[in-house]
Amino acid sequence: MSEALVGAFRRERLIRFSDCDPAGIVFYPQYFVMFNGLVEDWVDAMGIGYRRLIAEQRIGLPTVRLEADFRAVSRFGDSVTLALEVERLGTRSLTLALQCVGAGEELRMQMRQVLVTTSLETHRAIDVPAALRTAILRGNSDGG
Amino acid sequence: MSEALVGAFRRERLIRFSDCDPAGIVFYPQYFVMFNGLVEDWVDAMGIGYRRLIAEQRIGLPTVRLEADFRAVSRFGDSVTLALEVERLGTRSLTLALQCVGAGEELRMQMRQVLVTTSLETHRAIDVPAALRTAILRGNSDGG
Amino acid sequence: MSEALVGAFRRERLIRFSDCDPAGIVFYPQYFVMFNGLVEDWVDAMGIGYRRLIAEQRIGLPTVRLEADFRAVSRFGDSVTLALEVERLGTRSLTLALQCVGAGEELRMQMRQVLVTTSLETHRAIDVPAALRTAILRGNSDGG
Amino acid sequence: MSEALVGAFRRERLIRFSDCDPAGIVFYPQYFVMFNGLVEDWVDAMGIGYRRLIAEQRIGLPTVRLEADFRAVSRFGDSVTLALEVERLGTRSLTLALQCVGAGEELRMQMRQVLVTTSLETHRAIDVPAALRTAILRGNSDGG
Repeated sequence: MSEALVGAFRRERLIRFSDCDPAGIVFYPQYFVMFNGLVEDWVDAMGIGYRRLIAEQRIGLPTVRLEADFRAVSRFGDSVTLALEVERLGTRSLTLALQCVGAGEELRMQMRQVLVTTSLETHRAIDVPAALRTAILRGNSDGG
Repeated sequence: MSEALVGAFRRERLIRFSDCDPAGIVFYPQYFVMFNGLVEDWVDAMGIGYRRLIAEQRIGLPTVRLEADFRAVSRFGDSVTLALEVERLGTRSLTLALQCVGAGEELRMQMRQVLVTTSLETHRAIDVPAALRTAILRGNSDGG
Repeated sequence: MSEALVGAFRRERLIRFSDCDPAGIVFYPQYFVMFNGLVEDWVDAMGIGYRRLIAEQRIGLPTVRLEADFRAVSRFGDSVTLALEVERLGTRSLTLALQCVGAGEELRMQMRQVLVTTSLETHRAIDVPAALRTAILRGNSDGG
Repeated sequence: MSEALVGAFRRERLIRFSDCDPAGIVFYPQYFVMFNGLVEDWVDAMGIGYRRLIAEQRIGLPTVRLEADFRAVSRFGDSVTLALEVERLGTRSLTLALQCVGAGEELRMQMRQVLVTTSLETHRAIDVPAALRTAILRGNSDGG
């Protein structure tokens, strides 16, 4: 998973003062907050609507597993690219490959994240909604 | 300060899942995080460079006083406008008026914030740097 | 409000790495997160139960106004005392005086915060629940 | 790594309102913030002093890799136990096993995290300081 994500959904993100720690670099949990925002943007860009999914359909996307590698530091003021690709679409889960890339294509951090679709009433897994499945299979709005 | 900020520096901001609390609305400290980002964008837009100011010139902009009114809730998925205006430019301080406005020009939250310019070595107040003073007096890049 | 809060509800709090910014001091919105935790502890200590209030009775305590003064910086690793006193108990609101005090009784930050009791279904103000009113009038568990 | 961590360093932690998301459960990046606090407490309990390490000796403990499994949700108001064990002590790195356990010994979340010791001046790896190595080999202050 260390090669660049071809055909991925991408967004630029400025590293904020509030993302950084006393060492002047991104406080690592903040990468997960940034990627959470990227997943929101991706769901929105596919026309599904993240808010609609969560607040109206009451479907959650909790993380059940993740593996992350931190390769290089990001400093505040850096402009980074966040990229997302679906590695695997299961019956009740999605496996995403995510990257944060800095200037000169430097890989800063990457992760593989398994999300399950759940009912927010019961917190139990449910099938990936048909509309989301179709949108993912069609390819996301930015990617190839 | 309850009228709209005319000639203000403005940015759109999507309310993120991570901005919200178990009540499904913006967790109020998160407004201050959003406004901190707006101040960064404003300093960048004036050509001063927030990162340069903090990381290179070692000049901080800590808050010494703020007053905030919360008028209406913001929910996740909302698109809001954040606005900033300089109310007063002192020798060693800035007083900012800030607003968060939702759909239909609904005022969600507003605050008045006094920042001082400090040396990040000593955490003591220093004069507002000349370049920042000039840029503010010239009017910010978006506003009137 | 600059004198010490006599008879206040108090808790010790260690300033964490995650509370601090690239200047190595508490990122100011984090004070509000800390005080939110203090309010939780205070509601718990009065025997009301913060979680019961929010999650079962569906009563919220949103902030409608606050005024804060930042007097001295807190650094990570500092042990601070957070103190809370009820200044005014209204029909549908509470006014709290809050302080963060460091070593040698140094006042770091103080604020006055007006909370309203709301229905989490409608986000509208409701009367302060009788049990909470009684507990506040009786005096909090630690204070005088 | 799914068995309980015997002989681990442990701390109780109340799940705060501010730890939770609109689904009313811990926002997953917040687990990493909690574990960061646990590492601070552990370094303090070994007599090394986390602040001294970072702010005086200018030695950082950035994460280079982590693997996390999320097994069950934590809700606000829950009291959880955070546990830490050193799995491997390398020349320039530590591998930690971490768990968050709820009522009835329910495993909520666990992770394996590789930290490297770095110079905060250069952000390059350096040898684990002798005092830290000795303290770890002696066993942490709470564990077996």
